[in-house]
Amino acid sequence: MKAAIVTIGDEILIGQIVDTNSGFIAKTLDKIGIEITEMLSISDHKTHILETFASLQNKVDLVLITGGLGPTKDDITKKTFCDYFEDELIVNQEILEHVTQLIEGFYKRPINQMNKDQALVPSKCIILKNPNGTAPGMWMQKEHTVFISLPGVPYEMKDILENEIVPKIVREYNRPFIIHQTVLTYGQGESMVAERIEDWENNLPDFIKLAYLPSPGRVRLRLSARGNSEEVLKNALSDQIKQLTELIGDIIVGYDDNDTIEVVLGRVLTQNKLTLATAESCTGGKIAQRITSVAGASAYFKGSIVCYSEEVKTAILKVSKQTIADYSVVSEQVAKEMALNVQQLMNVDYAIAVTGNAGPTKDATDEEVGTVFIALASPEMVFVEKFNFGQPREKVIDRAVNKSFEILQKEILKNVQ
Amino acid sequence: MKAAIVTIGDEILIGQIVDTNSGFIAKTLDKIGIEITEMLSISDHKTHILETFASLQNKVDLVLITGGLGPTKDDITKKTFCDYFEDELIVNQEILEHVTQLIEGFYKRPINQMNKDQALVPSKCIILKNPNGTAPGMWMQKEHTVFISLPGVPYEMKDILENEIVPKIVREYNRPFIIHQTVLTYGQGESMVAERIEDWENNLPDFIKLAYLPSPGRVRLRLSARGNSEEVLKNALSDQIKQLTELIGDIIVGYDDNDTIEVVLGRVLTQNKLTLATAESCTGGKIAQRITSVAGASAYFKGSIVCYSEEVKTAILKVSKQTIADYSVVSEQVAKEMALNVQQLMNVDYAIAVTGNAGPTKDATDEEVGTVFIALASPEMVFVEKFNFGQPREKVIDRAVNKSFEILQKEILKNVQ
Repeated sequence: MKAAIVTIGDEILIGQIVDTNSGFIAKTLDKIGIEITEMLSISDHKTHILETFASLQNKVDLVLITGGLGPTKDDITKKTFCDYFEDELIVNQEILEHVTQLIEGFYKRPINQMNKDQALVPSKCIILKNPNGTAPGMWMQKEHTVFISLPGVPYEMKDILENEIVPKIVREYNRPFIIHQTVLTYGQGESMVAERIEDWENNLPDFIKLAYLPSPGRVRLRLSARGNSEEVLKNALSDQIKQLTELIGDIIVGYDDNDTIEVVLGRVLTQNKLTLATAESCTGGKIAQRITSVAGASAYFKGSIVCYSEEVKTAILKVSKQTIADYSVVSEQVAKEMALNVQQLMNVDYAIAVTGNAGPTKDATDEEVGTVFIALASPEMVFVEKFNFGQPREKVIDRAVNKSFEILQKEILKNVQ
Repeated sequence: MKAAIVTIGDEILIGQIVDTNSGFIAKTLDKIGIEITEMLSISDHKTHILETFASLQNKVDLVLITGGLGPTKDDITKKTFCDYFEDELIVNQEILEHVTQLIEGFYKRPINQMNKDQALVPSKCIILKNPNGTAPGMWMQKEHTVFISLPGVPYEMKDILENEIVPKIVREYNRPFIIHQTVLTYGQGESMVAERIEDWENNLPDFIKLAYLPSPGRVRLRLSARGNSEEVLKNALSDQIKQLTELIGDIIVGYDDNDTIEVVLGRVLTQNKLTLATAESCTGGKIAQRITSVAGASAYFKGSIVCYSEEVKTAILKVSKQTIADYSVVSEQVAKEMALNVQQLMNVDYAIAVTGNAGPTKDATDEEVGTVFIALASPEMVFVEKFNFGQPREKVIDRAVNKSFEILQKEILKNVQ
């Protein structure tokens, strides 16, 4: 079963917003064995939409379309659906009631004509309910291809996909098995990892494919197995993962598709009843934000002092004024005090502290743009590492955050194992 | 001049990573008047890549391709380039020296064969230098279409695009003018904004197009003008923006394409020499992180206390234990104390505090999942608003962060005007 994903909207083609919907749809369909053959972003011109629909007709089984369903003039997907399917818009009473309830009941505003027009749908479409918004999803078939239109607002689209579309596909269609297994590695680059597993990679069976997904500081390896027997695939994957772990177990931090370093870290901290705090200067709260993006983080994360000014470093985090005067705020000594002080103030097992200069311009210290000191305080010790993460600002912050997680993870695993 | 953007990689088609490169390329090319007609993501199979190249041949002037240039086995873009252009790979000595310098000099590792192979390029290609990585960009022409291959690592791609490709296009090609002007509005939904500007929108001249770009709590309006005289376009846009400001000036917070609420806020704070701090419970540092994502934030932002535990709320933020016992941590009273205390502790003009329950499960308090209290302390007063941001967790956090910015912005503008 093959699918294509189409995003409609000039805002994507001029780069004003990034399309995250297609990735989510792809991941969700992939899990139920549907192969995505292509993703397209096109403009919201009627002729371009119609041409795209025609080019996908009978080439794939499913076309998932997001965008262009809002209440305003530039939203033309519904009308274009009518043209393509030779259909007309009619008022759907159930949707009209839902829209009225949402606008008047939840948002406490009088309903206007644009809101009401959200209840207009092509007469032949199957409605996919959108509890979180006013635009319903629509399912229409022409010959061998089903076209599904979804709103572009991510959480509205997600709800319809998970609660309406996936169950309908699972009920009504036969699909082959495809299983992915991810291995997340940390601290070595793509070519180093590739070199270590070269022989193993060359001996992979034909029905298992390996992909490298590198990002700063880490490489995600993805094994994909495709075939008719779920059991055969599972056993084969499990066997390959075992071999891989023997080769590079020292740099593997997780095996789950949704594993991120913060999720893995959270699991280790929870299991070992350990607690964590951060003191952040140049990362500005991003380490805390990443930690708390994981549900259940309150079990191990107590908090952070984001000290973006010298005053906060001294008054709240109790870093010694003398240390700052002697070594400047971007220094090994200040990083160390930050870590030890937040560890003590928040009464935690582990504390991570970051001070540096993310740029774009050089600050009052002697250190170059990109210089970052990361300190880790554990129950036994404290240590500091110095890095230069280059430029630009965004990259310095991201690399400092990732490196902090890596240092923390390594140190904790060393102590609990 | 028309362009298409092609992303190569199975990792995108199975939704494992989100393609942010295409958006950046689109935005950059759009600024120099190049129209992006489509974006495509395709698998890293040779036949699929060749088919896509053929389908774009002579249909657009430029094809920008990212991905598939890494050193590992699944990276096949270079070989496919050779097939399409009937060319062969040769060693480029300059690139080999650069790769050697990068691996041995900067990363301090011995160079391996995979690294060395990065210096293999099609013999007919024009090299686009990649100072930040090992894979160079490649520029090749066939008939009326130029194909440009770029590495998929975002900061490597960005550097090549900005420093090699854009200057080359500007030098060598004639382009029409296209100007965009963005208006960022806050606090009213898409259909409400649309209703207020309906008459104005209906009277827009043909060469100006309006788009609505809604996201939680805000709507970005984008006016695009296309034509041959830059001056005519600029004057027409400026005139329309004036009319628009008369209609909805009360909800407009910015006019710059790169304006976000945190950028606009930073500008107002800097201009008025005001300072800011935050105390964050359920938002976990995300407000601080967004504030500090703006270069120069240290001029107005002093810091944040991320208090993810009751202990940190009482011990560091000095929230009264009695208040928590009487009203629970998710309450109007605790939010108010958090704001006032962080304002005093960090000695700032404005402080914003957030406490709530982001879910997924109900905590020890009586409040439902999604309940969030946001408190603002200004030099004159303190006030608290209660919200329910529904579910899921991610949405609650994002809406709480956006609403905090909105409240802060409104209050500050009231006081400085």
